[in-house]
Amino acid sequence: MGDNILGAIDETIHAKARLGIMSLLTVHGECDFVFLRKELELTEGNLGNHIRVLEEAGYILVTKTFAGKRPKTTCTSTKLGMEMFQQYIEGLEKIIRMAQTGKKS
Amino acid sequence: MGDNILGAIDETIHAKARLGIMSLLTVHGECDFVFLRKELELTEGNLGNHIRVLEEAGYILVTKTFAGKRPKTTCTSTKLGMEMFQQYIEGLEKIIRMAQTGKKS
Repeated sequence: MGDNILGAIDETIHAKARLGIMSLLTVHGECDFVFLRKELELTEGNLGNHIRVLEEAGYILVTKTFAGKRPKTTCTSTKLGMEMFQQYIEGLEKIIRMAQTGKKS
Repeated sequence: MGDNILGAIDETIHAKARLGIMSLLTVHGECDFVFLRKELELTEGNLGNHIRVLEEAGYILVTKTFAGKRPKTTCTSTKLGMEMFQQYIEGLEKIIRMAQTGKKS
């Protein structure tokens, strides 16, 4: 799908879990793995897979540190990720407007 | 994922192609298969699969008629489909608001 109403819908972000991750990172700036897992009600493996997709696309930065002796994984959006998320949101808004007014804009 | 920010994101509609189909049906009321295929730039098989998912969920009604000697497949939203699409759009709006204002509402 190219230059159509869905053109701005980036599949890297659109998957429900990744939309959740990007939304939470936009709101909170930085989120750790445990917070994301609880907030999105995902299994560890599932969250890990989605984080990897976003990391490989360059949309998020994953940092592994320690909280005391416990490993802690935190995620933040990159500049590219923030831009792509903004574009994605604008694409959604266009679809919503179209669906509500019955016009392609 | 249950009662979280993604709770209102119905996977039956969320898949990019199905979001396109539901949007076009909302705008145009009734769409034939060829129009949907061209508008969404999908292959026949791919569009057929997505239409089947929506039909099986009871979100759209698929009617097979003839235009002269050529078979013609048309789709319309059902009442359920319209309601679910409206709920989906409201869920998206909530996520957009959250992402833009930094608050869960």
